[in-house]
Amino acid sequence: MYRERILQISKHLNPSNGLEGPKINSIVVGNKQVALDTDFKIDVQRLKLELDSPQLSAYKDQVREFIKNEPLLKSPVGIPPDQYKELVLQQLVKVAQSGLVKCTDVRDRIAHFCSAVEILGLYNNNLCTKMFVHYSLFGGTVTLLGTERHEKYIDMVTNATHVGCFSMTEIGHGSNVRGLETTAKYDVKTQEFVIHSPTLSSHKFWIGGAGLHGRLTSVFARLITPDGVDHGVHCFVVPIRDEHLKVLPGITITDCGLKHGLNGVDNGKLQFTHVRIPRENLLNKTADISPDGIYKSQYATPIKNFAATMAPFIGGRLYVTKSSAAASRVCLAIAIRFAHYRKQFGPSDNQELPIITLPQHQRRLMVPLARTIVYDFFLHSLENQLQSKNAPNTIHPHCSGIKAMYSWHSISTMQVCREACGGQGFRSDNLIAEFKADCDVNSTYEGDNTVLVQQVAKYLLSQKSSSKDNIKKFDQIQQLYNLNELLVLFKSREQLKIEELKGLVGKNSYQSFNDAVPWAVRTTFAYMDRVILECAIQRVQAPRVYLHPLAHIVLLDTLGRIEDDLAFFLSHQLITPEIANCIPFVIMDLCKFITSHSLDIIKSFDIPAKCLPSESLTDNIYN
Amino acid sequence: MYRERILQISKHLNPSNGLEGPKINSIVVGNKQVALDTDFKIDVQRLKLELDSPQLSAYKDQVREFIKNEPLLKSPVGIPPDQYKELVLQQLVKVAQSGLVKCTDVRDRIAHFCSAVEILGLYNNNLCTKMFVHYSLFGGTVTLLGTERHEKYIDMVTNATHVGCFSMTEIGHGSNVRGLETTAKYDVKTQEFVIHSPTLSSHKFWIGGAGLHGRLTSVFARLITPDGVDHGVHCFVVPIRDEHLKVLPGITITDCGLKHGLNGVDNGKLQFTHVRIPRENLLNKTADISPDGIYKSQYATPIKNFAATMAPFIGGRLYVTKSSAAASRVCLAIAIRFAHYRKQFGPSDNQELPIITLPQHQRRLMVPLARTIVYDFFLHSLENQLQSKNAPNTIHPHCSGIKAMYSWHSISTMQVCREACGGQGFRSDNLIAEFKADCDVNSTYEGDNTVLVQQVAKYLLSQKSSSKDNIKKFDQIQQLYNLNELLVLFKSREQLKIEELKGLVGKNSYQSFNDAVPWAVRTTFAYMDRVILECAIQRVQAPRVYLHPLAHIVLLDTLGRIEDDLAFFLSHQLITPEIANCIPFVIMDLCKFITSHSLDIIKSFDIPAKCLPSESLTDNIYN
Repeated sequence: MYRERILQISKHLNPSNGLEGPKINSIVVGNKQVALDTDFKIDVQRLKLELDSPQLSAYKDQVREFIKNEPLLKSPVGIPPDQYKELVLQQLVKVAQSGLVKCTDVRDRIAHFCSAVEILGLYNNNLCTKMFVHYSLFGGTVTLLGTERHEKYIDMVTNATHVGCFSMTEIGHGSNVRGLETTAKYDVKTQEFVIHSPTLSSHKFWIGGAGLHGRLTSVFARLITPDGVDHGVHCFVVPIRDEHLKVLPGITITDCGLKHGLNGVDNGKLQFTHVRIPRENLLNKTADISPDGIYKSQYATPIKNFAATMAPFIGGRLYVTKSSAAASRVCLAIAIRFAHYRKQFGPSDNQELPIITLPQHQRRLMVPLARTIVYDFFLHSLENQLQSKNAPNTIHPHCSGIKAMYSWHSISTMQVCREACGGQGFRSDNLIAEFKADCDVNSTYEGDNTVLVQQVAKYLLSQKSSSKDNIKKFDQIQQLYNLNELLVLFKSREQLKIEELKGLVGKNSYQSFNDAVPWAVRTTFAYMDRVILECAIQRVQAPRVYLHPLAHIVLLDTLGRIEDDLAFFLSHQLITPEIANCIPFVIMDLCKFITSHSLDIIKSFDIPAKCLPSESLTDNIYN
Repeated sequence: MYRERILQISKHLNPSNGLEGPKINSIVVGNKQVALDTDFKIDVQRLKLELDSPQLSAYKDQVREFIKNEPLLKSPVGIPPDQYKELVLQQLVKVAQSGLVKCTDVRDRIAHFCSAVEILGLYNNNLCTKMFVHYSLFGGTVTLLGTERHEKYIDMVTNATHVGCFSMTEIGHGSNVRGLETTAKYDVKTQEFVIHSPTLSSHKFWIGGAGLHGRLTSVFARLITPDGVDHGVHCFVVPIRDEHLKVLPGITITDCGLKHGLNGVDNGKLQFTHVRIPRENLLNKTADISPDGIYKSQYATPIKNFAATMAPFIGGRLYVTKSSAAASRVCLAIAIRFAHYRKQFGPSDNQELPIITLPQHQRRLMVPLARTIVYDFFLHSLENQLQSKNAPNTIHPHCSGIKAMYSWHSISTMQVCREACGGQGFRSDNLIAEFKADCDVNSTYEGDNTVLVQQVAKYLLSQKSSSKDNIKKFDQIQQLYNLNELLVLFKSREQLKIEELKGLVGKNSYQSFNDAVPWAVRTTFAYMDRVILECAIQRVQAPRVYLHPLAHIVLLDTLGRIEDDLAFFLSHQLITPEIANCIPFVIMDLCKFITSHSLDIIKSFDIPAKCLPSESLTDNIYN
């Protein structure tokens, strides 16, 4: 029905333009044509394999089995904060005992660790955050920054006999971690470092695990040699509690208090008062100090050493992103099931229809569903790149960019899903509200999103300009159905934006870059849109792939992205007003198509029943 | 700085276009010119009077005093749900004892009731919701639908001796209230109505006050005469608890359980099993039944009678909107204060600057600040219209439209404010998270936003078309600084959208309207943008008004709205690409200007200290 209107409306809006719309029946991907009108039945198992990523599906099934069989993974609704924190600790121990994850995964099995978070995130983000801090942050420091002398910590982490924390952020130093104040002065006499955080602004803040359970923490502090020279920020292992969980001398810990969400995680504030640790507790992969106090680094400057220290932690952005991915999937599944069940209004007073039949409701849910799946494809490719020995140099901007885009996407998706369930979405039992509260912080922790998108923009500014000849414009409606042509369109937009940004930033001073940040943000989105679409096209072109309904999903997401930035495409004449006016009709057509398969698509997410409210929320509404 | 770039960038982007930008130094409003570059000091008291609305400021100060002096209005953070509900009940009683609000306010002093919610909403939305249900919903039914025989309820409400509920929504019938199932059959023998809700889908759900405290409820049920005729939905007063708060026979009440927010409000599910009430409990303003069972309505059909029953409740949308307004103000105040205090990054490692100096941060906070103030002006005008005897027929669409737009605006504003405070915004003590959780439901209760914007669109479709000659286009940058010309631009957009929508909807069948809803939503926004701007221009042109910084604020909001819908303005050639590319620069310029006065602007909100975290969050961060 919409397809017919595309031509109709084009003529209506532009009566002087005799636009000859094609009779479009297929989506083009590379040399394949995917029919738009064919009836077909989705093979849920096959689609699940594809959405899981084929090589990881078996592992993900193990994690799903763990969720199903572990009684401690019960509904977290309404558990008071103190009990909740104890429950999440016990859950962490169960994860450790399951053997599903190991301390060294963040080095040796990155895609597996990502997968564990992705599936456990379907259950709850408190457990994921607890795991993330323990395994990838504390475990990451000892695995990635330590040497042989730190191997003793590996088993402590794997078996969760000692809960580990990661003390980087200070009250006065969040995004700008190069400004950390805590010091680690070397004392030659005792061959010890003295960790000290004297000012309020130097206290470590938001430290996950520090509130109650942490026994060890890695501490980022400025290494000061006996000659008084500040060598910049280095990482040290510091015990904070004994085996009875009693806080050690010199350590002062305060709970961070009640939070918007994640009240199952014990965040704490840590103050160090002349805390002495052995020289060997310096994680010395890139730099070390000799017993007599001679400092030596592989890098020429403190800034370079710090950059090398931080680089391996880029994976952390992926792990956080996986929890955004999980939240998006669950909330969409809840809202889509509800929409198939819930009736309201209809052609007559006596005939009410399920709200999923409403085109606006389809649009609200299918566009974020498509984006979620397309983002997930991109995450799969990043996991693999990060694991490979020769990760491209785009890995850093791509992990930063997707972390920002996916966490914002998941926040808006959870909001839409909440509202799409009406009052039922506001009930804690229906779980969307829990995810909303717990995953909100994903936009500001592990790198504030606004800062991360600037990192991507800085990367783009550092690249050579492309030739202006590459700018391609759209002037035919068929092009809207061709993913490869859409990719060319995205490349043109990206190139124009980067050039504009370069013009704005000029000599790239502190002030000129900051003035240009509003444009830099959009440039980052344009760039990320392109690389994400490129990845999705590769994925749906792969020989094994089941093109129905993946081609439709990728097309819907792509057109949705164009709509989000339509003003730019128009003001730069990349597409004509006639085509712009057609886009919403094509989107509605695709939404209708995907809606008809939406229950099968969410089945293919294979979300354990425990992670969802009761079937179609029916019992839940009626209890 | 930005102003200089406007010309520069215009030429850069459109080198072939020798755009001669004007040297723009002032904003034009009617026949006034407001200088853009003048230094001035805001007179906080004068601005407060204007933002409060001059004739209501003294009353609002009384409410502020009540907040300051009433110890029960304490921090709600971390109070367990059971205790929270009791606290909010006690707060309601204190409000009643204060004499600030009366049951009849929703008829006789609408602007005062709005003002009470607006100021108490600065403290907390639980109390507002409790008040709203008791005074404006239950109180509203007896005041607006009752007659002399119901006057006994007025004092019970005013003094809160009997808490009242409003039982309209049923499990199966949320937005589509015409489909309510609960029946009220008239029994001639006993001269009683028998209220009955036999099916699961007919149970009253989400009923505020029903969970614990309600003694009376108004019930919306289908009136059935002894001849079996269904006269449609009418409203009845039904006692549900005795003086010891024991639930009465035939009434079954279940708590709705834990919620995303508003856990200080006792929402319940109500089931009626052959509950008998006296004939006189029918609220008989529009229709009545005689002792011997003869039904008589002022209206010819049940649908018309029902419409007349519901019409007076349009004020409810304003009251809810006032709580969105309050939440937006408080959260912006918190985030803006934090941004002035919090330092991070700077031109050198040793010199960090407050994050408010970052242009992107200014943009994130000043655009919603401007929108909040402009929306508030519109609310003031609606309050006055609703109170007047000859309210225009636009009052219904305008209340529906602003409820939807303001609640969505407040949700996105609270989110931005949360993120703008980073991790600190995630702490409950810092209050933004509390407002986020409590006010989220504003988008779906008291009319689901998506349904409300459709009501506005239906109103627009029912209006006569304007002449096509009225379409005016923008081709000079100066026009961006002229509020009256911007209003003409908004009228042109609105007219084009309405015509397109009419074309799409065609004969307005169930299906054709629903297919067009995505367009209808945007048409509603365009219409509301115009009437809101019209109102703001009238307000800033009023002789008493302090044009600094209100003209700047209105202009910023207006340009922000254009940016939100820029693709439409471009694709319909209402503005040129050159002007489109200039808009972000003008916006940044205005943001910078308003930022420099932002602490004074938020001071003029006169938010009681109790409603804010400690000064600049400083103590709060450092505790």
